[in-house]
Amino acid sequence: MTISETCRLAKEHASAAAFSSEAEKNKMLMLAADALLAREEEILAANAEDLARFTREAWLRDRLLLDKKRIAGIAEGLRQLVALTCPVGEVIEHFTTAGGLDVSRVRVPFGVVGIIYEARPNVTADAVGLCLKSGNAVVLRGSKDAFCSNAAIVRVMKDAIRAGGSDPEFIQLIEDTSREGAREFMRQKGTLDVLIPRGGAALIQSTLENASVPVIETGTGNCHVYVEKSADLAMAKTILLNAKTQRISVCNACESLVVDDAFAREHLADLLAPLREKGVELVGDERARRYAPFVGTACEEDYFTEYLAMKLSVKVVEDVREAVGWINEHSTHHSEAIVTADDEAAELFLREVDSACVYRNASTRFTDGFEFGFGAEMGISTQKLHARGPMGLRELTSYKFVIRGNGQVRG
Amino acid sequence: MTISETCRLAKEHASAAAFSSEAEKNKMLMLAADALLAREEEILAANAEDLARFTREAWLRDRLLLDKKRIAGIAEGLRQLVALTCPVGEVIEHFTTAGGLDVSRVRVPFGVVGIIYEARPNVTADAVGLCLKSGNAVVLRGSKDAFCSNAAIVRVMKDAIRAGGSDPEFIQLIEDTSREGAREFMRQKGTLDVLIPRGGAALIQSTLENASVPVIETGTGNCHVYVEKSADLAMAKTILLNAKTQRISVCNACESLVVDDAFAREHLADLLAPLREKGVELVGDERARRYAPFVGTACEEDYFTEYLAMKLSVKVVEDVREAVGWINEHSTHHSEAIVTADDEAAELFLREVDSACVYRNASTRFTDGFEFGFGAEMGISTQKLHARGPMGLRELTSYKFVIRGNGQVRG
Repeated sequence: MTISETCRLAKEHASAAAFSSEAEKNKMLMLAADALLAREEEILAANAEDLARFTREAWLRDRLLLDKKRIAGIAEGLRQLVALTCPVGEVIEHFTTAGGLDVSRVRVPFGVVGIIYEARPNVTADAVGLCLKSGNAVVLRGSKDAFCSNAAIVRVMKDAIRAGGSDPEFIQLIEDTSREGAREFMRQKGTLDVLIPRGGAALIQSTLENASVPVIETGTGNCHVYVEKSADLAMAKTILLNAKTQRISVCNACESLVVDDAFAREHLADLLAPLREKGVELVGDERARRYAPFVGTACEEDYFTEYLAMKLSVKVVEDVREAVGWINEHSTHHSEAIVTADDEAAELFLREVDSACVYRNASTRFTDGFEFGFGAEMGISTQKLHARGPMGLRELTSYKFVIRGNGQVRG
Repeated sequence: MTISETCRLAKEHASAAAFSSEAEKNKMLMLAADALLAREEEILAANAEDLARFTREAWLRDRLLLDKKRIAGIAEGLRQLVALTCPVGEVIEHFTTAGGLDVSRVRVPFGVVGIIYEARPNVTADAVGLCLKSGNAVVLRGSKDAFCSNAAIVRVMKDAIRAGGSDPEFIQLIEDTSREGAREFMRQKGTLDVLIPRGGAALIQSTLENASVPVIETGTGNCHVYVEKSADLAMAKTILLNAKTQRISVCNACESLVVDDAFAREHLADLLAPLREKGVELVGDERARRYAPFVGTACEEDYFTEYLAMKLSVKVVEDVREAVGWINEHSTHHSEAIVTADDEAAELFLREVDSACVYRNASTRFTDGFEFGFGAEMGISTQKLHARGPMGLRELTSYKFVIRGNGQVRG
C-alpha cells in the first residue's frame, strides 16, 4: 500500500474509532494487552531480527531492545489506560446566544493522528493505546531499524481486536520507512489531522521543516536549574543532582546550571561536588571557573546544547532578572526550576520564564504525564499551540460547536 | 529593518505586552481608538495613495477602501475590546500530585503572534487590538496593495500608545511586502509563536506549504445546507436563502445544497425558487435537474468549490447517512446545517459531520465571534489543532504549568 492509501484507510475508519463506546475501547485495550503477553515469543523473535541488523550506538540499541519484562511493561501500560476516562463528548462550554441559538462546545477526537518516531518499539503500543482510548485513528511511521518489532506489535494488537469482534483498521503502520517516505507522510494533509514527532532534535526539526499537516512539537529539553542567592544549599545540591543525573537521556533532565554570583562565590564548589564525584563533566563561564577551579571552559554553543549525557554547563548571573533573561534566550522552553527561599524572586521566575513547566524548589525531572497524574503520556509539547507540557488523553482531542436552533437566520 | 529584525523587536517587547495590567491595556485601546478618529484625514490620505495604485477587481477595491464611517467602525471595534475580560492569568486547573507538588495550569499569552493578510486595512487595527488585549506582541504582514493604509493605521495607534506613556514596540509592521518576504516571514520560528493567515484559499495554502511557525488555518468555507426529508419547507427555504444570499463573499455562506430525494422529488423546484428569483446560478446532479429543470449541470469540481458568488451546487441523496458522508468528503470543515424535524437524523448529523460548527435548523451564517458573543474575532479556524471555529481572545492564549514544591526530587 502507498503511504497515502495507508493514511486514507485509517481515515475511513476514524469515525468507527470516534464512536466506539468506552466499554468497547476498554475491551480492545485488555485484549491487546493479553495478546502481547501471549505472543511475546513472536514479538521477541521479530525484535531479534531488528537487533541482528542494528549497528548503531549501544544506547540506541538499548532503546530498541525488547525483553519479557519490557513487553510486560508495555502490556501494563495498555491496562492502565482502561482506568482513565475518555474525555470525548465532554461539553466544555454551553450558552444561548442573544438570538436564541443553543450552543455547545463539545470535545471530539482529532480524527487521524500521525506519529513519526525513532527505534523505540514501546512507542508503537503506547501510541496505539492512547489514540484508541481518545477515539482517534492512528497512523504509525516508525523507523526502519525497528520495523520488524513494530510490525509484530501492530499485528498482535490488531489480531486481538479483530478476534474480539471489532474492526482494527483504524490502526495503520506505514510500510515505507525510507526518508522520502517520511517526507511524504508529513504532507498527508487532508487525511492526517495532526502529526506528532517523538524523538530527537533532528527528527523534530525535519518534521517542522517538511510537514504540511499541523504538528505538535515535542521533546527537546535544554532544561535549567537556577540557584538564587537565598537558596538553601542542601536543597540546591539535592535538586541539581537529581535533575542532572537521575536519568541523563531524557528531555526533562537538567543541562545547565544558572547561579547567582552571591551564592556561587561562596558555595559553587560545594554545590557541584556531588556531580563531580559522579563523573559529570562541568563547563562554565569565567566566574564559574574562578569559584570552582575544576570547571572547564564553556563555549557559546554549550549553553544551547541538550547534552543528554554526563555533562553540565554553568553560568553565573547577578540576580533573578538576569537569570530569567538568560534562560529565555537559551532554553528550549521545556522545564526550568528555581531554587530559592525568596517568594518575590520565585514568583518573578515562575511568571516570566517562558517554558512549558516552571518549578520552584523541585526537580525538572517531574515533567511527565505519569508524575502529573495524567495516567499516560503521548509526549511533552514544547510549542504553545494547542498543548504545552505533558500531553495526556485530553490533549489528543479537539472540539466542535454544536448549535441547535428553530429556524434562525442572520439579519 | 529586515524581517527577522522586525520580528525580533516584537519578541523583545513581548513580555511587556504580557505583563501589562488590564487598566493599561484598556487605556491603550481607548487612546488608539481616539487617535484613529482624530487623525482620520491622515489615514484617508494614505488610503487614497493605495487606491490610486490599485488596478484589481472592484470587490477587492471595496475591501481596501476606507471612509469616515469605516474608520469609525474600526475605532468602535477597539473600544468594544475594553469591555471584554482578558483571559490571561486564569488558573485552568489546579491539583496536588502524589508527591506533594502543587501544580497550576495557568493561561498565558502566546508571546508573538504573526498575522499575514490581504488588502483589508481594517484587519490591521482589529489584529492589533485583539493581540494587545490578550497580552501578545504582534507582527503584521499586510499586502503591498494596502501598505500605505496599514502603515498609517499602525503609526497612529503607536503614536497614541507612546503619548499615553507606554512603549508601543510590541506592535510591528513588516515593511517588505514582496512574495519572498512573505515566505521569509512564515519561517521566523524562534521569534513568532504562531502564525495566522487571514484571507483567501491561495494565501492559506501558501502559508501551510511554507510556514515553519505553527499555523492556525482559517477561513475557507465550502459550507453545506442539508435538507432532510422531514424538513419544514418554509423553514428550509428561509434558511437556505439566508445562508446563500445574505452575504455571498463570506466564509460562512452556503455554497452547496444537499437534499433528500424524498423531499427533492416534491419540493426542490419550490425550495430553489427564491434563489432563482434572486439570480443565483444553480447547478446540480441528474436528479436535481430532473426535479427542477432550471438547474444546470454540475461537474465534480463544483462540489469542491467555495464560490463566494451567486452560485449554488445541488446534490440529491437518499438519506442522512449519505448526506453525512457526502459532506465530510466535500466540505472544508467550516460550517454545515441540517434542516429537519427528525431528532434522530439531527443528532446523527450533529455528531458525525466533522466540521467546526454544525447546526440544526439555523443558518450557517451564524459562525462568527460576535454572533457567538465572544465580542471580537481573529478569524474562524478550520483546523482541529488548538482552536476550531470562531477565535476570540481565549484562542489567542496558551498555558503553562507552574509547579511549587519544597525540595522534591524524583525517585
